[in-house]
Amino acid sequence: MKQERAVRTRQALIHAAAEAFERNGYVQARLADISSSAGVSPGALHFHFANKAAVAEAVETAAAVSLRRAAQDVQHPGMNALQRLTGVTYALAELIRTDVVARAGFRLSCDAPHRPALDLVREWEDCVRRLLAEADRERLLADGVTQQDAADVVIGATTGFEALARRQPEWLQPGTLRRFWRLLLPRLTTAEALAVLLRADSAVGAGGHEGGDRPAPGTAAPPPSVFVTR
Amino acid sequence: MKQERAVRTRQALIHAAAEAFERNGYVQARLADISSSAGVSPGALHFHFANKAAVAEAVETAAAVSLRRAAQDVQHPGMNALQRLTGVTYALAELIRTDVVARAGFRLSCDAPHRPALDLVREWEDCVRRLLAEADRERLLADGVTQQDAADVVIGATTGFEALARRQPEWLQPGTLRRFWRLLLPRLTTAEALAVLLRADSAVGAGGHEGGDRPAPGTAAPPPSVFVTR
Repeated sequence: MKQERAVRTRQALIHAAAEAFERNGYVQARLADISSSAGVSPGALHFHFANKAAVAEAVETAAAVSLRRAAQDVQHPGMNALQRLTGVTYALAELIRTDVVARAGFRLSCDAPHRPALDLVREWEDCVRRLLAEADRERLLADGVTQQDAADVVIGATTGFEALARRQPEWLQPGTLRRFWRLLLPRLTTAEALAVLLRADSAVGAGGHEGGDRPAPGTAAPPPSVFVTR
Repeated sequence: MKQERAVRTRQALIHAAAEAFERNGYVQARLADISSSAGVSPGALHFHFANKAAVAEAVETAAAVSLRRAAQDVQHPGMNALQRLTGVTYALAELIRTDVVARAGFRLSCDAPHRPALDLVREWEDCVRRLLAEADRERLLADGVTQQDAADVVIGATTGFEALARRQPEWLQPGTLRRFWRLLLPRLTTAEALAVLLRADSAVGAGGHEGGDRPAPGTAAPPPSVFVTR
């Protein structure tokens, strides 16, 4: 019982810290404001976290856990590497757009002056490069398009959408990614691969994803259709 | 004479401030460090600037002047809108990569908690949208590619390259943009427009730009060739 309450308090502190970091930035966020927003005493905060850097690390760790899970949840057996890549971009953008802990943790990891334990930007770069290497092995990339060409534009644009969304949150809405992939995929992939992506896409669009028309509780919604404008 | 020295002191303070903002961030940069790096007394700093916000505003204004001039300098009569757009991306990336005042001023304008007088990110978005609207009027965009599709990917990727370069400066080297445009242009433009871009490009690559093979002092170097890997 005590244990459960401690877990809830810790989560409330992480959530309040994410909001404080988002509102004021890491340097200007105050521990006193974080504990009071979480509805606990400063002493309770210090029971869980030694200092502000420890709070920030907990926000980043929580963000890493949920971002990694979201990236996993949209990848299914039978999907090719480009389906995985597009699906992961939608899932991560949606999580960063709607979840303050994922958003603040990702942003702390981008520019933190406090030397982050995790490097979520680097992790995202590695994820894109790995999936594009798989796409290359699966012979999905068009003639003359190298992994590096494709990685630069995907990493650059997705990082840019996230950076732009700090000022205008609409940049992380699904429509941005849908336009991006509609523009890019016909250049990136072979005609055959594009046809497969279109077929898979319209199958998802027609309802049904992993055999059910509603995602199981706790799992991500199916990625939005790449080619169908909603 | 006195006037000249005042101008030099002001420029030295702006340069030292740009370095301090880049090193420590706006919030943690100290006016005492800025005046001492510029080789002047704290009193001399306060003669020019009332407070840190005024120093930051001067850095942003200096950045805006040089970024606007660089964007102008690469646009010549007879260039089509896509030649202008690619040229401007190279020129701005090079200036931000090599000039600490342009770089710090642009970044202050991106995330400053001090309410910037200028909004250089918005200015860049408007520049891209304006040139793509011109490209559309000049019938340079491929069938089915809208101005918004093109603007999203160009604004997203260039903003992302700048954000990534804060951690890894190589992202702003010309090779990144060359790969980006080589990947994107064949999808963005009509076959005819692409042929024009290729011809103009090889003319620049063959030496000679605006009638001379060396840029005039104080002007930007010709933009690197889009399609030729160096």
